[in-house]
Amino acid sequence: MDVPVENWAEQIRAGDIGAISRAISGIENGTPAAARLLQILFPFTGNAYQIGITGAPGAGKSTLVDCLTGFYRDDKKTVGILAVDPSSPFTGGAILGDRIRMQSHAADPGVYVRSIASRGHLGGLAEAVGDAALLLDASGKDIIFLETVGIGQSEVEVARVADCVVVVLMPGQGDEIQGLKAGVMEIGDIFVLNKSDQDNAGQSALHLRSVLEMAAERGGSPPRLVPTVATENEGTVDLGRQIESFREKFEKSPDRGLRETARWKIRLLAMLKERLMARFTRDQIGAKDVDALASEIAARKKDPGTAVEELLARF
Amino acid sequence: MDVPVENWAEQIRAGDIGAISRAISGIENGTPAAARLLQILFPFTGNAYQIGITGAPGAGKSTLVDCLTGFYRDDKKTVGILAVDPSSPFTGGAILGDRIRMQSHAADPGVYVRSIASRGHLGGLAEAVGDAALLLDASGKDIIFLETVGIGQSEVEVARVADCVVVVLMPGQGDEIQGLKAGVMEIGDIFVLNKSDQDNAGQSALHLRSVLEMAAERGGSPPRLVPTVATENEGTVDLGRQIESFREKFEKSPDRGLRETARWKIRLLAMLKERLMARFTRDQIGAKDVDALASEIAARKKDPGTAVEELLARF
Repeated sequence: MDVPVENWAEQIRAGDIGAISRAISGIENGTPAAARLLQILFPFTGNAYQIGITGAPGAGKSTLVDCLTGFYRDDKKTVGILAVDPSSPFTGGAILGDRIRMQSHAADPGVYVRSIASRGHLGGLAEAVGDAALLLDASGKDIIFLETVGIGQSEVEVARVADCVVVVLMPGQGDEIQGLKAGVMEIGDIFVLNKSDQDNAGQSALHLRSVLEMAAERGGSPPRLVPTVATENEGTVDLGRQIESFREKFEKSPDRGLRETARWKIRLLAMLKERLMARFTRDQIGAKDVDALASEIAARKKDPGTAVEELLARF
Repeated sequence: MDVPVENWAEQIRAGDIGAISRAISGIENGTPAAARLLQILFPFTGNAYQIGITGAPGAGKSTLVDCLTGFYRDDKKTVGILAVDPSSPFTGGAILGDRIRMQSHAADPGVYVRSIASRGHLGGLAEAVGDAALLLDASGKDIIFLETVGIGQSEVEVARVADCVVVVLMPGQGDEIQGLKAGVMEIGDIFVLNKSDQDNAGQSALHLRSVLEMAAERGGSPPRLVPTVATENEGTVDLGRQIESFREKFEKSPDRGLRETARWKIRLLAMLKERLMARFTRDQIGAKDVDALASEIAARKKDPGTAVEELLARF
């Protein structure tokens, strides 16, 4: 890269797709240039509305994001989509398979789509996605979708980066929704029951509504449940309106500043943890030390607690 | 706890349920006594066969574990079940809701069931589950099930603790299985297509088999795909046999030692990262410092990269 980083930042602010893509690759690879870019661009962020979309594989998240992109494009908003791809860094095929559905917006310069591999980020997945979203924010995108697969702990961390989190469910997941009660309640601002044309959808909706209402008793009104059939574009305009109405409430809220500070605190601690470890393993211990200890543990010659204390003693 | 830790360890080795339960609570809370117990008991571990069961909510994992428990009890093996509960620490209800299905083994002293909350572990979820499994191993359980919800990154980490990982899928998830190709391939030793009596099951099975075969081209034969209907106990004996046959192959494998060392290395690094952070936040920085920095970031007065470098400079 021969372009000075200041020029590169200007190109990103002007919305240059090549410059944005190279910067996101830099974030994925943890390059010093990417870190410097983020420092330069940070004051120009905070304008985009970030929407997290999460749910189990097969729930129809990509199709929903496609529909919502149409909703926002009709309103002349520019859109960035960051899709966390659960495949390994060495498979490129998966991305295409999933993203083929986005072809309705492929020729639209107002839509930028990018997959991010779920593994191999030195600084952690949530940080990489958050940083990529900051870049798109600085590039002038009005709306940013953060799409993750699953409702596990790392998806919760990615979702926390967003301003509004949409949890996508499908009929038949009711059995275990009860078990997910509090965990899902904590991350979801809006719930979608996709594939609502299936036979068992009515029952799932009833069950889900009662779970949301029970869980909400602790703190105010339950989050919205929006039924959709994304493949038919049914219910998606209503979903778009709910997402916008959540935004208005959020932006007018008196505790907005506190919420943003709380979100940055979580992110800061996560960054600190990753960098602390990176520094320690670079300066204090080598791969050989860890290999030797792991081998002693596997042979039951040393217990893991003692091994980790031996490593920490060098600190 | 007035019992000296050595006696406590003896009680655990004798299979005393109260002693085991208190020890797992100690692991969850990160007590020094639990750490000491693990050190004493570690030389007595390595005999149990640990089976990870993972999959999306609603796939039927708990019912499958129930069936597999029956399979092993018929063979007079003792069973421990650790179920990662995605709810928050403050909800107890969810556990009961899910675990009500285990009542077929509730009166059986050869079966121990325990839920572990997915949040609030200082040392990380995977470490807590791994340590609890070590305890059950030392207590003499022959078979240990590690049941997690989701196929996210943290579930992958929990699954890595196990000797054999069973990924449970259901019909209709085919759409996105393509996208999960490599990620799932990496963690799954055996795949289950549960709810195989559904209309679209045949198509899902075909699709899934082709994905597994394609992905396996890189390294040998594809993992098994076992169709089941757990609610009817159909296909579960076949699944049990596949799990046992995987074990035989695994125990005879010449690279068994290398694989165990590799697993312990990952676990050791994860422990190190958590403890390093715990030590740093205890000694070097206070909650107030982080709050102040997060507030400056939210106001765009300081960028996150600079903030984290300021914290690291105290190190």
